[in-house]
Amino acid sequence: MSVKVLIVGGVAGGASAAARLRRLNEAMEIIIFERGEHISYANCGLPYYISGVIAERDALLVQTPGGMKDRFQIDVRTHSEVTRIFPEERVVEVQEKNGHIYRESYDELILSPGAAPVRPPIPGIDTIEAFVVRNVSDIDQIKGYIDEQQQQTAVVVGGGFIGLEMAENLSERGVQTTIIEMSNQVMAPLDFEMAAILHDHIFSKGVNLILEDGVKAFDKEENKTIITLQSGEQIQTDLTIIAIGVRPEIKLAKEAGLTIGDLGGIKVNEKLQSSDPHIYAIGDAIEVKHLITGEAALLPLAGPANKQGRIVADVISGRESRYKGTQGTSIAKIFDLVAASTGANEKILKKLGISYEISFTHSASNAGYYPGGKRLSIKLIFERNEGRVLGAQIVGSQGVDKRIDDIAGVIRREGTIYDLQELELAYAPPFSSAKDPVNMAGYVAENIIIGDVRTIQWYEVQKMNPKDVCIIDVRTEVERRGKFIVGSLHIPIDDLRNHLSELPKDKDIVLYCEIGLRGYLAYRILSQHGFTRVKNLNGGWVTYYPAVFG
Amino acid sequence: MSVKVLIVGGVAGGASAAARLRRLNEAMEIIIFERGEHISYANCGLPYYISGVIAERDALLVQTPGGMKDRFQIDVRTHSEVTRIFPEERVVEVQEKNGHIYRESYDELILSPGAAPVRPPIPGIDTIEAFVVRNVSDIDQIKGYIDEQQQQTAVVVGGGFIGLEMAENLSERGVQTTIIEMSNQVMAPLDFEMAAILHDHIFSKGVNLILEDGVKAFDKEENKTIITLQSGEQIQTDLTIIAIGVRPEIKLAKEAGLTIGDLGGIKVNEKLQSSDPHIYAIGDAIEVKHLITGEAALLPLAGPANKQGRIVADVISGRESRYKGTQGTSIAKIFDLVAASTGANEKILKKLGISYEISFTHSASNAGYYPGGKRLSIKLIFERNEGRVLGAQIVGSQGVDKRIDDIAGVIRREGTIYDLQELELAYAPPFSSAKDPVNMAGYVAENIIIGDVRTIQWYEVQKMNPKDVCIIDVRTEVERRGKFIVGSLHIPIDDLRNHLSELPKDKDIVLYCEIGLRGYLAYRILSQHGFTRVKNLNGGWVTYYPAVFG
Ligand SMILES: Cc1cc2nc3c(=O)[nH]c(=O)nc-3n(C[C@H](O)[C@H](O)[C@H](O)COP(=O)(O)OP(=O)(O)OC[C@H]3O[C@@H](n4cnc5c(N)ncnc54)[C@H](O)[C@@H]3O)c2cc1C
Ligand SMILES: Cc1cc2nc3c(=O)[nH]c(=O)nc-3n(C[C@H](O)[C@H](O)[C@H](O)COP(=O)(O)OP(=O)(O)OC[C@H]3O[C@@H](n4cnc5c(N)ncnc54)[C@H](O)[C@@H]3O)c2cc1C
Ligand SMILES: CC(C)(COP(=O)(O)OP(=O)(O)OC[C@H]1O[C@@H](n2cnc3c(N)ncnc32)[C@H](O)[C@@H]1OP(=O)(O)O)[C@@H](O)C(=O)NCCC(=O)NCCS
Ligand SMILES: CC(C)(COP(=O)(O)OP(=O)(O)OC[C@H]1O[C@@H](n2cnc3c(N)ncnc32)[C@H](O)[C@@H]1OP(=O)(O)O)[C@@H](O)C(=O)NCCC(=O)NCCS
Repeated sequence: MSVKVLIVGGVAGGASAAARLRRLNEAMEIIIFERGEHISYANCGLPYYISGVIAERDALLVQTPGGMKDRFQIDVRTHSEVTRIFPEERVVEVQEKNGHIYRESYDELILSPGAAPVRPPIPGIDTIEAFVVRNVSDIDQIKGYIDEQQQQTAVVVGGGFIGLEMAENLSERGVQTTIIEMSNQVMAPLDFEMAAILHDHIFSKGVNLILEDGVKAFDKEENKTIITLQSGEQIQTDLTIIAIGVRPEIKLAKEAGLTIGDLGGIKVNEKLQSSDPHIYAIGDAIEVKHLITGEAALLPLAGPANKQGRIVADVISGRESRYKGTQGTSIAKIFDLVAASTGANEKILKKLGISYEISFTHSASNAGYYPGGKRLSIKLIFERNEGRVLGAQIVGSQGVDKRIDDIAGVIRREGTIYDLQELELAYAPPFSSAKDPVNMAGYVAENIIIGDVRTIQWYEVQKMNPKDVCIIDVRTEVERRGKFIVGSLHIPIDDLRNHLSELPKDKDIVLYCEIGLRGYLAYRILSQHGFTRVKNLNGGWVTYYPAVFG
Repeated sequence: MSVKVLIVGGVAGGASAAARLRRLNEAMEIIIFERGEHISYANCGLPYYISGVIAERDALLVQTPGGMKDRFQIDVRTHSEVTRIFPEERVVEVQEKNGHIYRESYDELILSPGAAPVRPPIPGIDTIEAFVVRNVSDIDQIKGYIDEQQQQTAVVVGGGFIGLEMAENLSERGVQTTIIEMSNQVMAPLDFEMAAILHDHIFSKGVNLILEDGVKAFDKEENKTIITLQSGEQIQTDLTIIAIGVRPEIKLAKEAGLTIGDLGGIKVNEKLQSSDPHIYAIGDAIEVKHLITGEAALLPLAGPANKQGRIVADVISGRESRYKGTQGTSIAKIFDLVAASTGANEKILKKLGISYEISFTHSASNAGYYPGGKRLSIKLIFERNEGRVLGAQIVGSQGVDKRIDDIAGVIRREGTIYDLQELELAYAPPFSSAKDPVNMAGYVAENIIIGDVRTIQWYEVQKMNPKDVCIIDVRTEVERRGKFIVGSLHIPIDDLRNHLSELPKDKDIVLYCEIGLRGYLAYRILSQHGFTRVKNLNGGWVTYYPAVFG
């Protein structure tokens, strides 16, 4: 008799698992249950449909129930919510839209129900129309609302990547948009000084970004919503989007008695098996092993969901596939900038008490002498002794995706900063430099861990009293003009050797330049001329400025 | 007493070594000898100066002798050719432009003299002005010639990347250009079917590409050159560029008695030391270990030269740096296309008798539902048992650099196709797909090596008689229209299960579709329904067409 597999949720994880199952097993009985109207939709594309960047709604539907039937002989049941699992009997209960309830038995069950947008219990939230962005119906509603009412203003609550993408696309649509973010930065996977680069940019695009303030109450006033913030400030808006994060859909799993982790996701093993061996779970609903910290983590991302879909199908088909963990590689376009990260950030490592070092580099996306290169800023986080790469964050306007992938590849195989140096990447002037920014990050990191340079961080310099230390700006006259650390001396790098006798040996010396390179050269000169109390500002002015003044 | 290091050649390898040496040793005596007028010039940017894409000549000069003096206290002597080495005495002989000859002693000597363009001994070559492209003076001459004479036509002899870049930039400058290439393809690092994608594109840009024909003779006729080809064809041209490859500059090394390898490059160890322990050699002049084949190789590329510059400085400074080998990652923009490769190609592996498997995939550079994605074609070469990745070639118009880097990173650490699958790359719609093209290449490769599909290559199908085999096109009606393999049946994939009874079990069946994906699905269906003599056309019509008809 043929094996019967039921799948709950027909999008990233679920549909991928179904297709792969069929490729491996022509005879298997495969049924997908999807609560909503659509399967296989492009969650990640939803925001772009608002602005018209994705013009055709159909483009959001990567596959259809009919297509899955014709190509894969998969029985797709939409408007069909799985409402209960009876693990002992290997049966699920299904409720159709019309209220009809029935049962379906299984040999193996795959849960890929995703994660639900968090809806905060803020006073008044139920009196207004507060939209979330999860599926095609959500985006239809938002788009319909804007089209009909010709909304002029919108507030996006939450500055994560979905919030930012929504803000961008609303703004490109002509809607005057405000983002309200409770913490002091957007894009939580980034550390503060990297996110700070984005803050200015978001403002420059006409989006009002409110940081370190939360929503206290929503009030309805005719067609408008009045949002009162913790600070007391009030904002009037036509449209409100809630994008403060997602939470695994675990109701079904919990009621079925499956083990739920501390973070609120379904617990699975490397075979993606839950605590019931005939129930598998994948995608946003599960806790994964964080590849760097080794701890459980919630990392709701499409790449992992799709990959797990293939792996779970392999496992059910008796193959040796295993899911080893997630490193959290992610990226978002934010107007003309791109922000990406992979591995652990400083915030996580601090919390876990894992020690690390960091470097900042700011390199051109392609050879300096070839037109079109744009600066990209790389924050590299690495372990001190062996130089293992723990994480990276990159912000820039071009070539960011490539560099985060390069580093992600090294992290995946537990590589070191020396591996970054040795990466032999493709170089011709339109694409990179002979030493790619990623190689360069590896060199700079090495200099830090072997002690060829000692660095000081922007927040340490920020707190310094220029009277206690000798801060030296080694840039040119022109670079310094109007943009310098108050109280700093000015000695251009090429003059430094002529001024050694004027510098104090009994005082801390902080060197800085534009990106950190000349500060490093200056460090090498001073340290070899008997100056022992020298440090170089990590990342130079380009890291310091947005973090301190941004 | 301070150590004295002399460097021969002041560009990619030499200048990098000098700068690093100074950073590590403030007291060292460092002298660079450069035969030409310039140091630290952007060799790789030279072709773009012809078209004006690089508009300012100064942009080609990344550093100057004055800059090296001010910043690094390096004594740069241009117009100074090192004409002899006396290894016993640790002395070199230097000839200045004015004829003055002197000697300079060293503790350590670094040779980074690069490689010289090959000038073939073709009858008449000395009677015409045949330009080569190696340094700024060369490009000044070519540009001057075009500017002055308002050249209308040019012939570029050689279809390697320098030849192609020259052809592109001449053409963009408005010069009617012909490329003459002796072999049946351009860009030798690519295998034929990948290069074939470029051939059409080059023609479409108005450049006349002549393949499988060589120059027999040059003749001067007034201001024109008459080029007679092996085939007898004659071409008249105003300007002739010779770009048939480069050869290591080994005269000095040879005369000094240093060991020269079979390929004609200086032999060095992992410390980049020649057979004389006080003479180091780097860059285009040396033979490197090919990372895949383990054999000696000539791979004249800027990335390796620059990296070796840093390593040799480390070694001389007593550090543990080692150069492990080169994998030959390279890339070129060819009008609107980009061609890149890394590792070994089929040609090399065949020659060495190393067995391998290949896959072709054609994926979009970003998510299909987001605008702007362009197809990129990946040829992956891998070892059958463990799945170790041996090489890759990619042609496309966008995102090629990123994917070749991803694969290069895996190759660098001796990774497998399973590593490609597991790469967790940055995904948002503008940048990639949830399963990146590189992940996809890993999946397809796995299916081949574990036998989930058996493939057949374009050249095997090309040679088949459609009467002996059953060739089935599983694409749609529209895709097939006017573009199909003659003699093939047409059964769209979604109909296939309804036609099983009509298919022969006693005959070879070849399946094909547009890119290979649906052919694979069809294979899975047929093979599970008792058809044992089935194969899928690797890469589908998109690989087949340019290779067979291009
Ligand atoms: C606006 C937006 C933008 C995003 N952008 C990116 C991005 O750029 N990059 C990235 O990596 N990730 C992005 N993501 C995240 C990505 O879409 C998810 O990680 C991925 O879709 C998770 O796959 P999944 O299968 O776990 O869940 P989903 O794809 O969400 O599918 C779950 C499905 O299960 C259904 N379901 C739930 N419970 C039941 C039930 N009981 N019965 C029947 N059906 C049920 C739901 O209706 C839903 O359709 C984005 C998400 C959103 C919402
Ligand atoms: C047109 C062109 C385009 C290129 N594009 C790319 C590309 O896109 N990507 C890529 O990776 N590589 C590219 N390359 C190759 C790259 O430039 C070389 O690999 C790299 O420059 C090699 O560095 P090197 O130090 O060995 O030699 P070079 O950079 O060539 O420097 C050698 C120097 O030594 C001097 N010299 C030689 N003999 C003596 C002597 N006896 N005394 C004094 N001086 C001497 C020469 O005059 C020369 O200036 C390109 C090369 C050219 C010519
Ligand atoms: C549409 C959907 C069902 C497709 O799933 P899928 O069939 O596994 O994926 P693809 O169509 O990309 O096909 C991949 C298969 O084709 C094979 N393939 C791809 N290119 C090939 C080629 N050139 N030659 C041979 N085989 C090829 C791959 O090996 C893979 O098969 P395998 O897994 O058996 O090894 C699923 O991806 C989906 O629902 N996507 C939309 C939802 C979503 O992902 N949302 C989040 C992101 S917005
Ligand atoms: C110009 C040239 C002399 C520069 O050499 P270089 O000084 O080694 O290279 P860079 O200026 O990029 O500086 C790199 C150094 O700065 C450091 N650095 C870079 N960014 C930094 C930052 N943000 N903070 C601190 N240090 C930084 C690096 O660690 C590296 O130092 P290290 O090698 O001691 O570790 C050499 O590259 C050259 O001649 N180039 C032109 C010729 C050429 O390459 N042609 C072929 C390609 S067209």
